[in-house]
Parts: sequence; C-alpha cells; structure tokens
Amino acid sequence: MAKKHILIVPGDGIGQEVTAVGKKVLDKIAARFNHEFTYDEALIGHVAIEATGDPLPAESLEKMKNSDAVLFGAVGHPKYDNDPSAKVRPEQGLLKMRKELGLYANLRPIKLFDELLGASSIKPEILKGADILFFRELTGDIYFGEKGRKNNGDTAYDVAEYSRYEVQRIGRKAFEAARTRRKKLVSVDKANVLESSRLWREEIQKLALEYPDIEVEYQFVDATAMILIKEPTRFDVVVTANLFGDILTDEASQIAGSMGMLASASIGDGTGVYEPIHGSAHDITGKGLANPMASVLSAALLLDISFGMKEESEAIISAIDQVLKKGFRTRDIADKTTDPSMILGTDAIGEEILKLL
Amino acid sequence: MAKKHILIVPGDGIGQEVTAVGKKVLDKIAARFNHEFTYDEALIGHVAIEATGDPLPAESLEKMKNSDAVLFGAVGHPKYDNDPSAKVRPEQGLLKMRKELGLYANLRPIKLFDELLGASSIKPEILKGADILFFRELTGDIYFGEKGRKNNGDTAYDVAEYSRYEVQRIGRKAFEAARTRRKKLVSVDKANVLESSRLWREEIQKLALEYPDIEVEYQFVDATAMILIKEPTRFDVVVTANLFGDILTDEASQIAGSMGMLASASIGDGTGVYEPIHGSAHDITGKGLANPMASVLSAALLLDISFGMKEESEAIISAIDQVLKKGFRTRDIADKTTDPSMILGTDAIGEEILKLL
Ligand SMILES: CC(C)[C@H](C(=O)O)[C@@H](O)C(=O)O
Ligand SMILES: CC(C)[C@H](C(=O)O)[C@@H](O)C(=O)O
Repeated sequence: MAKKHILIVPGDGIGQEVTAVGKKVLDKIAARFNHEFTYDEALIGHVAIEATGDPLPAESLEKMKNSDAVLFGAVGHPKYDNDPSAKVRPEQGLLKMRKELGLYANLRPIKLFDELLGASSIKPEILKGADILFFRELTGDIYFGEKGRKNNGDTAYDVAEYSRYEVQRIGRKAFEAARTRRKKLVSVDKANVLESSRLWREEIQKLALEYPDIEVEYQFVDATAMILIKEPTRFDVVVTANLFGDILTDEASQIAGSMGMLASASIGDGTGVYEPIHGSAHDITGKGLANPMASVLSAALLLDISFGMKEESEAIISAIDQVLKKGFRTRDIADKTTDPSMILGTDAIGEEILKLL
Repeated sequence: MAKKHILIVPGDGIGQEVTAVGKKVLDKIAARFNHEFTYDEALIGHVAIEATGDPLPAESLEKMKNSDAVLFGAVGHPKYDNDPSAKVRPEQGLLKMRKELGLYANLRPIKLFDELLGASSIKPEILKGADILFFRELTGDIYFGEKGRKNNGDTAYDVAEYSRYEVQRIGRKAFEAARTRRKKLVSVDKANVLESSRLWREEIQKLALEYPDIEVEYQFVDATAMILIKEPTRFDVVVTANLFGDILTDEASQIAGSMGMLASASIGDGTGVYEPIHGSAHDITGKGLANPMASVLSAALLLDISFGMKEESEAIISAIDQVLKKGFRTRDIADKTTDPSMILGTDAIGEEILKLL
C-alpha cells in the first residue's frame, strides 16, 4: 500500500468533465489495490484568468510542485483565439507549467484498441499492428524563444532555439524507450532548412553511437506527416521537437481512431503531469458528450510512470478494452455499425469503466 | 497560336526522369494546338553544386528570369541530409530561386482522380468528393529569417517572421481563389502560441471584411493535421504559412492517393515555377520507376496559370484520367487489385499519356 497525493487540474472546457471521471477511476484503483490517494484541485487557463487574472496562479504552481503527480485536463477558450491581440491567454498557463516543472519530455503513445480498428478514417489493413511512442520535446523550440513585434508593429517574429543539452536529454529518453520496445527510432526534423534541426540531428547522431542496438532513421517532418498515414506500422519510437511533435501527434491521433482515446505524460525534473492530447473542445463543453477515456488512460499512465504501479495501470487499460469489447462507445468513436443505444455520454461510459475495476 | 519560351530545370534525382516526360507532353500540346514552344535547360541543386560549386548558378537564375515559365523537378541529395554541418546544400538553390523570383504563393491542388479512390490509405468513403486548394506562403517564415549558432555553437536558432504585407498578398490570392470555388477558406496558424501567427490571423481577419461572401474558418495547425485525415471534404481553400504548408500539403498528398500525382504552382512577381510536390527520391532514381504524372500535371498547371491555356491544360488532365481509366498505373498508385502487367515505368506511362493527346 502506498500513500500518494494527486493534484487534479481540470482547466477549461471539457477538461472539467473528463478529469472528474479520471479521478473516480483513481479512487477505485486506490480502494481495490489498497492505496491511499489524497487529492487537491488547482486552477489553470481561462478559469484561472477569470478567478485571479493569472493563467497559472502562484498557488496552483505551488500545489503542483508539492504533489506526487498531476492529472490535468485542457486549457483554451475561443474568446482568445479570435482576439489575436489579447495579452493574457489560457495557453500561457500551460506553457508556464511545463517550463516551471521542467517537463521536457512529452510521451504520447499511439495505440489502437482492437475494437476501434473500424473507427478510424484510415483503412484497417493499414492500421493493423500500429503502435507508436512519440517523444515530443516540451520546453524548448519556437514555443519558448523570444517573440514580439518590430518595424512599428508591422512585423511579428518568433525564435526557435535548441541547445545541445536539450536535445540530448529528450533524445536519451527516446533511445532508452526504444530499447524496451522494437528497437527502432525515427528522429524527425527539418535539417534541410533549419539550423536548429541541424543541431538536433547532430546530437541524435552522437547518441546513436551510444546505442548501436537501436536502428535510427532520420526523416524530414513533411515526409513524416505523409508516411504516418501511408504506413503507420513503420514507426516504433519517434522523437521530435516541440512544434513538430504538436502537429504530428495530433495527426497520429487518427491512427488511434480518435483523439478522445489518447493520453500523454509530461515528465522531467519534478512532478509528472498527465493529460489527454485533446483540447478544451468548447463546442461540446457541458453537454456530457466528451469521451473521458483519454483522461482515464492519462490516469493509467500516471500510475505507471509516476508511481511505478504497473498492475494498477494495466487494470485500467484492460477495463477500457472490455468496455469497448462490450460494444460501448462515445460519440467520437462510434461508426455506422454502432447500435445507437450503445453510444454513451461522459459519465455513463465512466460508470461502465468503474464497474469493471 | 502563341510563342512561349519554357525553361526546364530538372534538378536532382528523379527530377531528371519526370521533367523529361513533362517536356514531351508540352511538346505534344504545342503540336496539337499549334503553339510554338522553345526550350532551354538550367542547373539547380546537387547537380549544380557538382558542376559549378553553386546550388543556383547566376546563369540559371538569369535564364529563369528570361523565360515565360519554368518546369522544375526536385532538389536534394542524401549526402547532405546526413551531414548537418555541410555549408553548401542543394535546398539553398531552391530557396534562393523562390526568393529571387518573388514566388510568394505556392498553389497545391489536392484532388483525387476517381480511379485512385482505392489507392489511398484513407477510406474511400472519407475521401469521396475531397477537393482542396492549398495556398502555401513561400518566401517568408522560418525558412528565410535569420539563423545561426550562438553560445560557442552550443545553441542553434531560426527566426520565423512575417510582415503584414506578406500575409496580405498571399491571403488575397486565397480569398480570390475561394470566390471561384466553393467560397470557403480555412486559415491555418498557431495563434495560441506564436506571435507571427497572431499577426497572420489579424491580417486574414481584416481581409475577411473585404470578402463577406467567403466563409472563413481559423484553425490551429495541430487541429488541421488531424481534421485533414478525419474529414478532408470539410476543406475548400486553405491558406497557411510556409512551414505549416510544407507539412500539411505532404500529409494531404495521401488524400490524392500518392504524392506522385500532385503538382504545384509557385507564382508571384515574375516567372512562374511549376513542380511536383514530391522530392528527389534518390532511392528510386535511375530505375525508371518514378511516377511522372505530378510533373505532367505541373505542365498542365503551367499552361493554365502562366499561359492562360485552359483548354490545353484540360486536355492533359483528361489524358491522365483516361490512362488511369484504362487501368495503367505506376508502382506508387498500384494496389492489390492491380494487374501486374498494367504497372508501368516512367517512360512507358508517359507514352500512354502522349498517345491520348
Ligand atoms: C494548447 C496548446 C498551447 C498546446 C500545445 O501546442 O502544446 C496543445 O496543442 C498541446 O499539444 O498540448
Ligand atoms: C526541399 C525542401 C527545402 C522543400 C521545402 O521545404 O519547401 C520541399 O519540401 C518542398 O515542399 O518544396
């Protein structure tokens, strides 16, 4: 039995609804495996701006640092998206959290549940066997370089930047993961154009000498965007920069049938943060339609990676697998063959998962 | 009858093989429609480096400026890709050509030939009716900003930059094109993180006021990468920055069944340049396996856009359509149902196209 303190950070939009299910699942696991999980909540994003004026209040950051792991929802609000001149934005809270907690490695496993082979827009015979683990660098690149306006506001700029050390530490994590898997690593960059990509490639090439057992392939990001759809089974572990990782993992979500099924782990120097890769989805917020499985799978990643609870983590994955095998679906993963009475809302599918734990 | 001077710039790898077919098609069109096309050739990329030390020799640039249109192949060589420290690179020739000719708008039409509905990795029912026209900005962004190393070579950086004027001129072209189509425009950026994207969005929002008949949607690039695969029919015209356009159009090539079917037009202040979106593909160079249809379709775009020859352009597209209807395929667009004897090489499928012109 272990004692752990978990911080729930729902954030904006459907973040609230899905983390509520994630938390219930954690609670059930604690009961079943005889752990003691305590919880607290903290604000981030638009809800934090509304309450305090700050997208990441000092109090939230403090709580994050003092917890054993964070179950996070999403941030974002359409209000800011259509106002490019807004000075305070929900996303600043997310980026600050990543930087302050030193969350430099974002792991995004892309794996299709057998039952969802038909739910993707990609042909089942192309998808079959696809199992990719993305390592997206999360605290560097054009996200964190200098940005601003010049020429009297007539020109806007953003600086993309990588240091050797930043590439090494994420690269090493990716090589290590490849060792525990199919021993293949694809490093994605745009080294034919970008200097930061050339430095990226230099460092990965150096690391490759230390991992002679890993087969390394270098791809340009445009080619990867194409091959991911054409031949997803070609990939095992993929390592890439922050911006490329953002784009490619959203694209790759189609391999898993829906974004609603994908969890991610952000790890680094301190507390790990676990979150769905989907966003705040204001178009369906408050309707009880959101698929909570990405949040539940985030809870599974949290148990596995931050607490070393492999069995507990697998119990969750297996519960989701069974719920899908029973034919239950949320709207986003239903297809023409789904019996409408089996399409459940957020809480109802959550209950089905809980029953199996 | 028109007199036109066309410059053939094969570049590297399969560029040589495919532009040879494109040129033959132009020749046949000239004969059939009674035009007088004269040709010259120029070097770019790796072959230009080998011959002159310069990826875009002054003589090539001069010839480009003095021609009525350029039929271009591809640049690139694996030798440089795996040597991140190489100072002279084939791609520099391509980028310099774009900048020097003021080719700020790269048009990439993504349209599936009916016969190829089965060739894609995406399900036919998802693809049916997809018809997208991308406007990729081509002379700005992180491709052309300052780049270099600092901190004793320990850090590499690239600056992404856009001025209002740069966004306006590509934006206007996209809005105008939407008017002649289904009147829908998606502008893609990362305005929740990048300052250059926020300026981009501001300018598109201003233009939208001038085009009240066009329905405009703003998407983040990560969402677009996902929706393109999930629901490609949602798009009509898409306008985006240089780097995002590079990634998204390669991805979108899967909508058309294969990259080997996609042509692009780069236009702006002077001579237009027409090229396949595929690269130099050194793995199949010299084997006679390359699909020349993207180059042939580039010739069709050239006739249409630079010479205003609509009928001639349509004759080419129709010839390709018929070749596909007859069941002829190149390797990249063949599938399990293709009779192996119908899979032709570069020149043989070129001959089939020529027969129908
Ligand atoms: C909300 C946004 C800033 C964020 C990102 O781009 O990193 C999101 O897309 C993600 O992938 O977590
Ligand atoms: C070769 C490379 C520099 C080029 C680009 O990134 O623009 C290519 O990918 C393209 O799309 O034309």
